[in-house]
Amino acid sequence: MLTIDKVYDAARVLDSVVRHTQLIEAPRLSEECGCELYLKPENLQVTGSFKVRGSAYKISQLTEEEKAHGVIACSAGNHAQGVAMAATKQGIRSVICLPSAAPISKVEATRRYGAEVCLVDGVYDDAYAEAIRQRDELGYTFIHPFDDDDVIAGQGTIGLEIMNELPDVDTVVVPVGGGGLISGVAYALKTLKPSVKIYGVQAAGAPSMYNAVKTGKAERLPSVATFADGIAVKCPGENTFEYCKKYVDEMVTVTEDEIAAAILHLIENQKLTAEGAGAVAIAAVKFGKIPVAGKKVVCLVSGGNIDVTILSRVIDRGLHKSGRACSIVIELIDKPGQLEEVSHIIAECGGNVVSVYHEHGDAQAVNGCFLRLGMETRSFEHIEEIKNALVANGFKIIQ
Amino acid sequence: MLTIDKVYDAARVLDSVVRHTQLIEAPRLSEECGCELYLKPENLQVTGSFKVRGSAYKISQLTEEEKAHGVIACSAGNHAQGVAMAATKQGIRSVICLPSAAPISKVEATRRYGAEVCLVDGVYDDAYAEAIRQRDELGYTFIHPFDDDDVIAGQGTIGLEIMNELPDVDTVVVPVGGGGLISGVAYALKTLKPSVKIYGVQAAGAPSMYNAVKTGKAERLPSVATFADGIAVKCPGENTFEYCKKYVDEMVTVTEDEIAAAILHLIENQKLTAEGAGAVAIAAVKFGKIPVAGKKVVCLVSGGNIDVTILSRVIDRGLHKSGRACSIVIELIDKPGQLEEVSHIIAECGGNVVSVYHEHGDAQAVNGCFLRLGMETRSFEHIEEIKNALVANGFKIIQ
Repeated sequence: MLTIDKVYDAARVLDSVVRHTQLIEAPRLSEECGCELYLKPENLQVTGSFKVRGSAYKISQLTEEEKAHGVIACSAGNHAQGVAMAATKQGIRSVICLPSAAPISKVEATRRYGAEVCLVDGVYDDAYAEAIRQRDELGYTFIHPFDDDDVIAGQGTIGLEIMNELPDVDTVVVPVGGGGLISGVAYALKTLKPSVKIYGVQAAGAPSMYNAVKTGKAERLPSVATFADGIAVKCPGENTFEYCKKYVDEMVTVTEDEIAAAILHLIENQKLTAEGAGAVAIAAVKFGKIPVAGKKVVCLVSGGNIDVTILSRVIDRGLHKSGRACSIVIELIDKPGQLEEVSHIIAECGGNVVSVYHEHGDAQAVNGCFLRLGMETRSFEHIEEIKNALVANGFKIIQ
Repeated sequence: MLTIDKVYDAARVLDSVVRHTQLIEAPRLSEECGCELYLKPENLQVTGSFKVRGSAYKISQLTEEEKAHGVIACSAGNHAQGVAMAATKQGIRSVICLPSAAPISKVEATRRYGAEVCLVDGVYDDAYAEAIRQRDELGYTFIHPFDDDDVIAGQGTIGLEIMNELPDVDTVVVPVGGGGLISGVAYALKTLKPSVKIYGVQAAGAPSMYNAVKTGKAERLPSVATFADGIAVKCPGENTFEYCKKYVDEMVTVTEDEIAAAILHLIENQKLTAEGAGAVAIAAVKFGKIPVAGKKVVCLVSGGNIDVTILSRVIDRGLHKSGRACSIVIELIDKPGQLEEVSHIIAECGGNVVSVYHEHGDAQAVNGCFLRLGMETRSFEHIEEIKNALVANGFKIIQ
């Protein structure tokens, strides 16, 4: 059973295992949203996410016999690394079942924290079935990623830290996948200060808890679609659903583009790298999904384990969406000097050409051709300025 | 004059202005380098860099009359934002002279912190001359970015914080531009604990203090070439040169590629965004420029204000340099089905095609053509595997 004493006990146990991540002011977002906003940067937590709190406390609560048998979990992400590190720190054997198609980087990260990795053919559900099989046959304790009161108590220590550092907090915004994090945080905060408002945020492409809370019924989504893999959970936990109904004021969702913009905001204004799941609370506040005006608000940045190729795409998309990069296609007459003239006009306007593709294709004139240019620009106004200069010089912009 | 009392006084004054940035463990780098490594994340400082410490203390030490006249500085970077914010917080007018070609984002950031921006035609030296002219004519106090004992005392508070949080520190590694940061940090640390080793790091393309310390003579570099603009300083300060000679154990330099790799390391492993200057200490440790084995080491991450288009390029370069992205050119016979076959082979090997360019050009056969493919890959071994599979199927890889 979840009690506030259990959360305090978790804080005591975790004291030597995890970082007390320090709240960070977010002045730019505060200004944008008319509130006083702080980040709880669990992306700076050991293993790069809050997950280690729950697993470490869960493992500490095992009996000596259970500890001797070791633990098993199924995850390709933050939970795997949390369990691996927590078990290793406590001198306990850990096995992590992963689908065999899991990215090598995740497999290596999990091994690096000291776990044995068991690659299972198939998808997540197959890896899960294998973990349960090994638990039953080999006597491991299965560490659930969220639907377990000890795990929830561990995540709840984040609530204690927030209360401790910012006792007059009004509103806390929390990413939600299976619901373990928000259950712990909401339980701890509402117990200590019932007036605090707790908001949960899911990706619009994986709204399992959102739907459950709205309809009052936890149902399994047939599929999920979001790059925020840390919260792409098809079905809420039984316990976490109950806690969310009781302690969470409202659930909201954010789109993929909003998540990407939030990641870029965190890089540019806070110098922090967040994964998709880690950025949804920021996205919800930034895009007006939650009433924050005049409030003291904490957004939980739950983790930072984003694949850097994805991060690179998020940045590129963000640059295009904010007018700092663009791609244009110009129809040219295929004669000497055209490319030079276009380049000259763009340079005069202060645009920086980063890619050029010249192709024939189906231009209107037989001797016509297309020029596709990638540019670094300063703003949407700057892009318009460049386009206007090209048009004023007789060039036809197709796109 | 610089005294330890002055540094303590700065700490007292700064208490309500700046963040005590908390040391962050760097387990991955510790393992790589066989040491116990911590980051002092001044990229998480207000304004995104340590500079605010020095300016805020300097401004606090002005007489009432000087305060009434206001302050002036010349910078397009972190110093501008530091002065602007420090002055605004203390209710003092600030003017920042910038070259008129400065990026709009920097101008806006400086204005956002409450400074009046004075755009000066020409380069940095012209903006500097204008700032001095306004100082002389209008009675502003000029805030030097580094060569000033009050500024240095402000930066020295970082040394006090390190000693306080990690009293058994052995080695501290500090980015060096004009030398204000390292002078303050080295002075404070060597005074409190003479056994601490202090290393300074410069970009190989801007080795002004490095040369000065090696030759014993401070000379002005004719030019500097590094994307670490925060430390692209042509000439060491007079005072800072003296402090470096006295308190710094050794100066080293790092290359542009090493800096880029360090930035990528910080994103992937520490979830922190650093600017080029902010990453040089990490680069020096990661690439073996400094003896750290078995030591307790603190690397100062001095700032995080990197232009996101540059960051995007740094990431792309890092992905290519670490085998996680590649570009290959294949010579094809121009007949149906070739692209399909190539795509099939790459997909079988688990490569992810992200760009395709098909061109005629000067292939050996008249009916030959070139196919340039951009791919996301897992490692250099993975790239070799894909290339080998293509060659085994009769394709010719040009590049």
